[in-house]
Amino acid sequence: MPPITFRHARATDLPTILTLLADDAIARSRTGYAEEVTPAIDAAFKEISADPNNEIIVGEQDGQVVATLHLTYIPGLGRGGLRRALVEEVRVRSDLRGQRIGEALMVDAMERARARGCALIQLTTDKRRHEAQRFYARLGFVASHEGMKRPL
Amino acid sequence: MPPITFRHARATDLPTILTLLADDAIARSRTGYAEEVTPAIDAAFKEISADPNNEIIVGEQDGQVVATLHLTYIPGLGRGGLRRALVEEVRVRSDLRGQRIGEALMVDAMERARARGCALIQLTTDKRRHEAQRFYARLGFVASHEGMKRPL
Repeated sequence: MPPITFRHARATDLPTILTLLADDAIARSRTGYAEEVTPAIDAAFKEISADPNNEIIVGEQDGQVVATLHLTYIPGLGRGGLRRALVEEVRVRSDLRGQRIGEALMVDAMERARARGCALIQLTTDKRRHEAQRFYARLGFVASHEGMKRPL
Repeated sequence: MPPITFRHARATDLPTILTLLADDAIARSRTGYAEEVTPAIDAAFKEISADPNNEIIVGEQDGQVVATLHLTYIPGLGRGGLRRALVEEVRVRSDLRGQRIGEALMVDAMERARARGCALIQLTTDKRRHEAQRFYARLGFVASHEGMKRPL
């Protein structure tokens, strides 16, 4: 496998990131799905880039963005002041699956979270994503919680 | 039921908030559990108070803090730039349960999240908390996701 480097996303990566986010049947089934950089997405990216507690990470291989995730670092009062990392919007380009790119992406995210003082990393994954759940379990995640959501 | 008002937590509420967080068998079973305001908890509270995307809310009844939760507002690139609210550390004083204080607390949180432009609110709850899951389901939350966590 060609080497992958992980770095913060730049504004010029946004179209590719949106393509990665859209390359997913469950994501496409949801409301608000967008494949173009709308003003709302541009504003969200600017806000994330300016916030030290939010990071969009991309994996680059042969000069192409092939994977992405969103990390949020969250201070907390529980468990003695435990800081946690939340992972959202994990994607690997679908034609490149099975090459352990996702594993490298998540290992990089866990290293970033540790470096930021997090003692816990967490995510929610749609119950229909059985393969994703096996993937996260192999990386040491435990499905100890119900992930409950509500539109507002 | 005496009226409850919801407001941002102050530093002077911290001992009561920690007592609420500790008033829970599952929380007590976890590592790092603390009942006193340690330097780490004090630092976390200061960081949360300075961060517009994090809020500790308390419910006050008859001059006493009887409920708390932690809200994090998270911008995102998915779903057209959807902003979500994450809820953590939800507690109602155990001797006051059954008075719909939790419902008022969560309704207040949903109003705050909507006012901040969130189109989704989400949380994870330990799979052993069956009563909590029924409570959230009554409020419109759907257990559509696995909540997966990993210590770092």
